Amino acid sequence: MQFHHHGYVSSDPRVEDAAGTGIDRPEDLPEHVDVLIVGSGPAGMIAAAQLAKYPNVTTRIVERRPGRLKLGQADGIQARSVETFQAFGFAGRITDEAYRITEMAFWSPDPANPDHIARASVALDDGTGEISEFPHLIVNQARVLDYFAEFARNAPARIEPDYGLEFAGLEIDRSAEYPVTVTLRPVSGEREGEQRTVHAKYVVGCDGAHSKVREAIGRQHVGKVANHAWGVMDVLATTDFPDIRTKCAIQSASGGSILHIPREGGHLFRMYVDLGEVSADDNRQVRQTTLETTVAKANRILHPYTLEVKDCAWYTVYEVGHRVTDKFDDVDPGDEEQVAPRVFIAGDACHTHSAKAGQGMNVSMQDGWNIAWKLGQVLSGQAPPELLATYSEERQEVAQNLIDFDREWSSLMAKPAEDFEDPKELADFYVKTAEFPAGFMTEYRPSLVTGDTRHQSLATGFPVGKRFKSAPVMRVCDGNDVHLGHHATADGRWRIYAFADAGAERLNDWAEWMLNAAASPVARFTPDGADLDSLFDIKVIYQQPHGEVEFGPSIPALFQPRVGPFQLTDYEKVYAIDPERDIFEARGIDRGGAVIVVRPDHYVSQVLPFEAVDELAAFFEANTRRPG
Amino acid sequence: MQFHHHGYVSSDPRVEDAAGTGIDRPEDLPEHVDVLIVGSGPAGMIAAAQLAKYPNVTTRIVERRPGRLKLGQADGIQARSVETFQAFGFAGRITDEAYRITEMAFWSPDPANPDHIARASVALDDGTGEISEFPHLIVNQARVLDYFAEFARNAPARIEPDYGLEFAGLEIDRSAEYPVTVTLRPVSGEREGEQRTVHAKYVVGCDGAHSKVREAIGRQHVGKVANHAWGVMDVLATTDFPDIRTKCAIQSASGGSILHIPREGGHLFRMYVDLGEVSADDNRQVRQTTLETTVAKANRILHPYTLEVKDCAWYTVYEVGHRVTDKFDDVDPGDEEQVAPRVFIAGDACHTHSAKAGQGMNVSMQDGWNIAWKLGQVLSGQAPPELLATYSEERQEVAQNLIDFDREWSSLMAKPAEDFEDPKELADFYVKTAEFPAGFMTEYRPSLVTGDTRHQSLATGFPVGKRFKSAPVMRVCDGNDVHLGHHATADGRWRIYAFADAGAERLNDWAEWMLNAAASPVARFTPDGADLDSLFDIKVIYQQPHGEVEFGPSIPALFQPRVGPFQLTDYEKVYAIDPERDIFEARGIDRGGAVIVVRPDHYVSQVLPFEAVDELAAFFEANTRRPG
Ligand SMILES: Cc1cc2nc3c(=O)[nH]c(=O)nc-3n(C[C@H](O)[C@H](O)[C@H](O)COP(=O)(O)OP(=O)(O)OC[C@H]3O[C@@H](n4cnc5c(N)ncnc54)[C@H](O)[C@@H]3O)c2cc1C
Ligand SMILES: Cc1cc2nc3c(=O)[nH]c(=O)nc-3n(C[C@H](O)[C@H](O)[C@H](O)COP(=O)(O)OP(=O)(O)OC[C@H]3O[C@@H](n4cnc5c(N)ncnc54)[C@H](O)[C@@H]3O)c2cc1C
Repeated sequence: MQFHHHGYVSSDPRVEDAAGTGIDRPEDLPEHVDVLIVGSGPAGMIAAAQLAKYPNVTTRIVERRPGRLKLGQADGIQARSVETFQAFGFAGRITDEAYRITEMAFWSPDPANPDHIARASVALDDGTGEISEFPHLIVNQARVLDYFAEFARNAPARIEPDYGLEFAGLEIDRSAEYPVTVTLRPVSGEREGEQRTVHAKYVVGCDGAHSKVREAIGRQHVGKVANHAWGVMDVLATTDFPDIRTKCAIQSASGGSILHIPREGGHLFRMYVDLGEVSADDNRQVRQTTLETTVAKANRILHPYTLEVKDCAWYTVYEVGHRVTDKFDDVDPGDEEQVAPRVFIAGDACHTHSAKAGQGMNVSMQDGWNIAWKLGQVLSGQAPPELLATYSEERQEVAQNLIDFDREWSSLMAKPAEDFEDPKELADFYVKTAEFPAGFMTEYRPSLVTGDTRHQSLATGFPVGKRFKSAPVMRVCDGNDVHLGHHATADGRWRIYAFADAGAERLNDWAEWMLNAAASPVARFTPDGADLDSLFDIKVIYQQPHGEVEFGPSIPALFQPRVGPFQLTDYEKVYAIDPERDIFEARGIDRGGAVIVVRPDHYVSQVLPFEAVDELAAFFEANTRRPG
Repeated sequence: MQFHHHGYVSSDPRVEDAAGTGIDRPEDLPEHVDVLIVGSGPAGMIAAAQLAKYPNVTTRIVERRPGRLKLGQADGIQARSVETFQAFGFAGRITDEAYRITEMAFWSPDPANPDHIARASVALDDGTGEISEFPHLIVNQARVLDYFAEFARNAPARIEPDYGLEFAGLEIDRSAEYPVTVTLRPVSGEREGEQRTVHAKYVVGCDGAHSKVREAIGRQHVGKVANHAWGVMDVLATTDFPDIRTKCAIQSASGGSILHIPREGGHLFRMYVDLGEVSADDNRQVRQTTLETTVAKANRILHPYTLEVKDCAWYTVYEVGHRVTDKFDDVDPGDEEQVAPRVFIAGDACHTHSAKAGQGMNVSMQDGWNIAWKLGQVLSGQAPPELLATYSEERQEVAQNLIDFDREWSSLMAKPAEDFEDPKELADFYVKTAEFPAGFMTEYRPSLVTGDTRHQSLATGFPVGKRFKSAPVMRVCDGNDVHLGHHATADGRWRIYAFADAGAERLNDWAEWMLNAAASPVARFTPDGADLDSLFDIKVIYQQPHGEVEFGPSIPALFQPRVGPFQLTDYEKVYAIDPERDIFEARGIDRGGAVIVVRPDHYVSQVLPFEAVDELAAFFEANTRRPG
């Protein structure tokens, strides 16, 4: 954590100074805003949190609920989400309070006595430990939202949700300065029933599966629409079931099944009691299933074990299908060249997933983050408006792929072991696809912000289009063992990692070019008077142990920028290998060096040799502008 | 973190429900209190935080300052303190924002050019990694106080400091129900200048080196009184000194020396510029040393490097001597049998240390914690008043030992390498005493709350009288790899760890005795209707890997207590070895099993065989009472 460089910070350094729109932020929703986010679920809250780092952009977030979410909804947090929380500063705190999944038990009818269930096997969750340094967690969705809310409140733009306001509709006039006119209805408080109008440059619909924003821009779900239903209960109970604090898939002979999820705090747990596919003519009958029925069913499945529910915190019948919307913005397919998008949809508003794979909240957050940094950059003049078209391009495909994969995965997981031709098939599939439940499957195609794989061989462990997988390095200035990727906080900046060649000759030439060449992105786009690292956070990683790297003139000035009003040296741009876990080995980096460009949301954009300065220049030429 | 067992907690689980005196806590200081703490430095704040866990005890803390500390004072946080922060729930957060020391550089005159300094050597800080799983940190004392304040505010008694109140004097009438009458003077706010009287059962003077409470009870410093002075500056500066982000001891040929401490946030640092011993007739002349003088002196010492101070957050001349008060309470030596203490002094009020060893804030916190849990237990009826006499007994000796050791250590550290007969002498001393700078030297003697070493061979890695050194184990219920000691949070409970024999026969007999024998401390002292683990938190650690331990009747009921209004099972009392880091091996535990009793402040009280139930019963008979 870096601070004090604008002067001494006596209290919590996580609370940044208010700036721009964050100073004297009007309590009441203004008539004109740059961005209006609709819905404060995971997609909306992460978007608000990210945009709170852009104090020159006026962002508001409206939410129908009268206040914070208190109970229920999703609870599965993939490692990719915890990695994301790290960027927003709360991975440690939420991990401390969450349940951590380390293994999963599979229960099925006891072959000797099929009327009883018996533990059939136990599988490690991310058994390799290779997929991520972050854990797989279970925690109340409400807490995830609380932490994003805290971040948004403490960031320079000081964003707080405007509760009790319902989105009713919108109209678009592309010729206006504020093209989207939104109608809102206060649903609680003094103004209940009134109608309000807000003019926005952009609207992000994060209003959940029954999205009114989606409806307003005429987008349709495509694909199979059959829903699956579960009786879901978050309960405090006594039981003699021995695995009550382990994640379990429980299959009974009677055909019923439970997905059992222990929850944070050591006592609460959630059971998904399978209520099956919902037929088209169900007429929401399945929703009438009572808690008592669900508890009784759970007891039948668990036999010979019993469950006595003492307190039910939340109960619902959760009915969801695999669905994706054809496009995630308001520009019709084919019109992308002529029309710029003004309205976006994110999260459940444009895709829904089975509860089993635990994707919903996780994918939604990645949507929200994706659109938010792009809006932040465009609205603050750092990027051309064309950047915004990449949102639907990227995220629609991700959602579609995840759903296809989820179908395959779920059915394979459900297939009895004896049905496989080769018994190794399942195990192989599991290992090959271990990234899926952890949330690391996303691989963006070449676009304005993602390069191609031409030079991939220079860094095989940083696949272009996938998220930058961190690894330990040593910070030279203080000999601290740190994770290189953990410095990439949600500040909207590009990261450029220069992995030095052994003698640093190529590195030094490149650094000289970056600092001084007219075509260098740093020279071209950094605003006058701004710190050298205000748009591009550039770090060097030497191949040597840190004791062999000495601060001084031998380290290029590019990596020792002067920052803040006192123009102090930032010493935290210079790294060396951790000899016990050499990052060059771990990530397959060429000993001749390589330049890795990483997006503000952690995805690898470019792997380049030092000499490919023209490619580097052209890449940023396309997606970056000089602000102001 | 365990919660939800009293019903669903929707928001931050770190905020506990208010209880007892925490419900409708009067804003204004009441006339009668159980405990009055004077001074909200590290000693006072940890005491308040601990007592905030006793909602049936009325505790108030008065402080002369008008509000929170903002700047300066100590910044060195030993691993023992971070371990303590873990018990108060903020080790992770403060580590995230602090500077972490991993090595120390020694600079001295360049032999080739003595006018210049040169790096002579670099030593690892806790190079072995064996001393603690916690780091050595540097962070603003104000932040330490903030975190304790947060804990006190969120704990059931909802304690907040009463700022702007100065202690003026006290009188003791041992026959009264509230024996100590304290005079206070508001020094800010509306009532400034008035005089107020508070009647307290106990007073804890945490009012710093110039303690008025110490004076009021007539205690005197003993020992050498010569002070040492440093010019201390917390600054933002530019420099070409390459080790500016490394802790350094810098010795120049001109004789001047600097202790250089990088600080949190990546930019700030503190320099202690040595101003030497202060002669008796100095008449506070040394205090007149200006920042300019100190900066100039620093530049001379650093030559050929230079330092340009851009912003000074804090500057002081810190003058301190090695001092200890003869007794840390109001009972004169020899009167202990007849008189019960009513007033205690803690922290700088009773001992001061050189800034060099970084002991001050750290030792003070251990004082505050020691007296606070004892007061909490006595005032809530869980312990006899005699317990309180152990405070001065224990802490006075610790302070004396530390000071003696510090003298030896500092002079050895200062001795030039060539003066040693055997060059290995210094290195040996360093390794042998590595516990000292980390804060783990304390070793309490046998007393009401500390047993003897008769059975030490059963667990050689848990020396009786020293703090319980945690080690990793597996939690059986959820297969989570956890640190056994990290469950010992600051809740005032005794911990009893039962390390099982291989077949668990002796364990089971012992558990049966603990649960049912009339003489068992659990049976004798647990209040009617209270949870089984309300006074004693009893855990079992099996020798087997967790996959071989099954929840069910084979685990004694003692380790599966029912808790809270719903009488839910607590599953977090049962542990197994982490096969890769077998705690039995790591801590030298006899394979026949052992019982380890640990105090609420982490110190090992007893190592016993399972059969020594009489010794166990007698130990608690002496120091525990049935409350209520
Ligand atoms: C009742 C419910 C139960 C669920 N149960 C599970 C579960 O058991 N397991 C699981 O994995 N996932 C579950 N989910 C899904 C999971 O919560 C979502 O995948 C995840 O929250 C998606 O995030 P989001 O931000 O896209 O949408 P949501 O979290 O749905 O957030 C949408 C937000 O928009 C607000 N909103 C909606 N319409 C408007 C409007 N017109 N104007 C203003 N605000 C509006 C809503 O109040 C809500 O706060 C559940 C969702 C719901 C709604
Ligand atoms: C000005 C100063 C500079 C220091 N500089 C360093 C340093 O550079 N390096 C280092 O290692 N240590 C330094 N120390 C020492 C270090 O801060 C202490 O060792 C540590 O704070 C001890 O904690 P404590 O709680 O015992 O006392 P303190 O932190 O001193 O707290 C005592 C508290 O009591 C309050 N108080 C005092 N008298 C009264 C009264 N009559 N009524 C009500 N309240 C009262 C004070 O305002 C203060 O808040 C410094 C201390 C001071 C005071």
